[in-house]
Amino acid sequence: MKKFLNHPEKVVDEMLEGLLLAHSDLLRSVISDNRALVRVDAPVHNKVAISTGGGSGHLPLFLGYVGKGMLDGVAVGDIFASPSSKQMLDVTRAIHGGKGVLYIYGNYGGDVINFDTAAELADLEDIRVETVVATDDVASMPKGYEQQRRGVAGLFYLYKLAAAKAETGADLDEVKRIAEKANARVRTMGVALSPCILPAVGHPTFQVAEGEMEVGMGIHGEPGIQRGSLQTADEVAATIVSAILQDMPIEKGEKVSVLINGLGATPLEELYIIYKAVYSLLTDQGIHINCRYIGEFATSLEMAGLSVSILHLDDELCRLMEAPFVTPFRIQH
Amino acid sequence: MKKFLNHPEKVVDEMLEGLLLAHSDLLRSVISDNRALVRVDAPVHNKVAISTGGGSGHLPLFLGYVGKGMLDGVAVGDIFASPSSKQMLDVTRAIHGGKGVLYIYGNYGGDVINFDTAAELADLEDIRVETVVATDDVASMPKGYEQQRRGVAGLFYLYKLAAAKAETGADLDEVKRIAEKANARVRTMGVALSPCILPAVGHPTFQVAEGEMEVGMGIHGEPGIQRGSLQTADEVAATIVSAILQDMPIEKGEKVSVLINGLGATPLEELYIIYKAVYSLLTDQGIHINCRYIGEFATSLEMAGLSVSILHLDDELCRLMEAPFVTPFRIQH
Repeated sequence: MKKFLNHPEKVVDEMLEGLLLAHSDLLRSVISDNRALVRVDAPVHNKVAISTGGGSGHLPLFLGYVGKGMLDGVAVGDIFASPSSKQMLDVTRAIHGGKGVLYIYGNYGGDVINFDTAAELADLEDIRVETVVATDDVASMPKGYEQQRRGVAGLFYLYKLAAAKAETGADLDEVKRIAEKANARVRTMGVALSPCILPAVGHPTFQVAEGEMEVGMGIHGEPGIQRGSLQTADEVAATIVSAILQDMPIEKGEKVSVLINGLGATPLEELYIIYKAVYSLLTDQGIHINCRYIGEFATSLEMAGLSVSILHLDDELCRLMEAPFVTPFRIQH
Repeated sequence: MKKFLNHPEKVVDEMLEGLLLAHSDLLRSVISDNRALVRVDAPVHNKVAISTGGGSGHLPLFLGYVGKGMLDGVAVGDIFASPSSKQMLDVTRAIHGGKGVLYIYGNYGGDVINFDTAAELADLEDIRVETVVATDDVASMPKGYEQQRRGVAGLFYLYKLAAAKAETGADLDEVKRIAEKANARVRTMGVALSPCILPAVGHPTFQVAEGEMEVGMGIHGEPGIQRGSLQTADEVAATIVSAILQDMPIEKGEKVSVLINGLGATPLEELYIIYKAVYSLLTDQGIHINCRYIGEFATSLEMAGLSVSILHLDDELCRLMEAPFVTPFRIQH
């Protein structure tokens, strides 16, 4: 294992300490272990507050999306492990501005249990909480079982759109409606070329042989749908776009947003080569790319690989996509 | 070699095509091979124009810094290879807004020869060109030979500061003075954990053994000053900060900007752990970190490693650091 760290078991604590030192103008911690973080100006009164959370090791997910025009708070766990319901409740209390709180997070067992518990506890304190669970990974379950799918990089769109709606002063039901609409209209599929190493484990938890790739692998190394020979960039793009459009047909003339997400070790140069291929595949079918994001949005430590997310836009979502936001890792102007 | 690509020899062309498709609102190509790119609104009249260039494979360097509040144009070569003087001249013509052009680039033989030729050719067309070559890599040559050092991630500061000055309407001599001042006051040192693979080569051009790291390695794999056992994050930070401060002493009470740059495969989590250590080392000596940048600014494909740059600020540089900019990869608000 070759990593820049001091103690494998202190990676998350030291990372959070560095992050808070770096971004004290944007983020603050509400509990002593720094696992519950909120916007520096939280709570924002008369705005629906939005919270997320999940395991560490996915930066800029989850911490990177807290800020004006984005999320109000986040609870983070150890590497690839859920935060506790106590940490989520601490965030909930700190961000509630009088209009309720929306939880948006990815569909993983531990997170679901802990967020549900936190919501029940918040209810006892008269904080109304609603929940939308992201299920954008088409490779994780077949059609018909959408609600059992994992949530991956498409979470970015749920955050972005719900947050833009919340900034307009909309109530909790309306903000929740937008998050559900985004989830219903986004699909993601990933391809992994190499594993990552958990600092506390010290060796890869799985292997992808030289010359092979795993299609549909999850961001914690969950098995994909197909392991086979490494394909060209054009073939990888075609595999992903075809799987997504088969699952979620998009008519000629419709608009989409595309997110090309690097999983950690894949050079930005390769993400642009994939974008070129995705662009051709979509425009050949008469589908317009209205806005695109290319970079690292949801990583898996130093895993090599990428995912492509496609969000099926309509006029309402287009308008919300344009809203600005300011977070530690990404600013939209 | 496991990469997302179609033809190893077409990596740069396909990357540029994808990049122009993605960012046509910010960038445009001025020649048919897309190797000369400029701000979409170039030339900006009555502003000193700033151009850079260098080999591909370092995204977001060099292309990522073209945009309002940053650079006017860029010439890019093949992976790790200089662009031609013709490409540089094409950029120069396209960005010249009547107040001259400043070239800012890293100190590498091929780039120096080609930029110098382009400057001579521009002079024949009555375009005044001045040049500042970045030499921030302390590990590349000992003290006393500063002008022979390589330019690495510290280039970001030369761009940022000179561009902010140019936006104020300053003349070419003033903008050049700021770039030279930034270069004189910035130092960088890097550590590599693993090599990168050039697509056209197909295998690593060097190796760093398991359990080892190379201190001072360049962003093209140039040998460093010391190969040894992998150190902890705190030890790596101490090695770098001590080398930089020995080369460029900074008094107690002075202000700096710090840039923690990932070389490609290093998770953002680890960069924050390094930032925490650098923060402690500097504040323990009474040095204030006025602004910080953490992420990928100058990569080497999928090399694992990082560099730390320290810019010694004064009041003039502090003010220029605050100016906003909008580029394809990074926005400052």
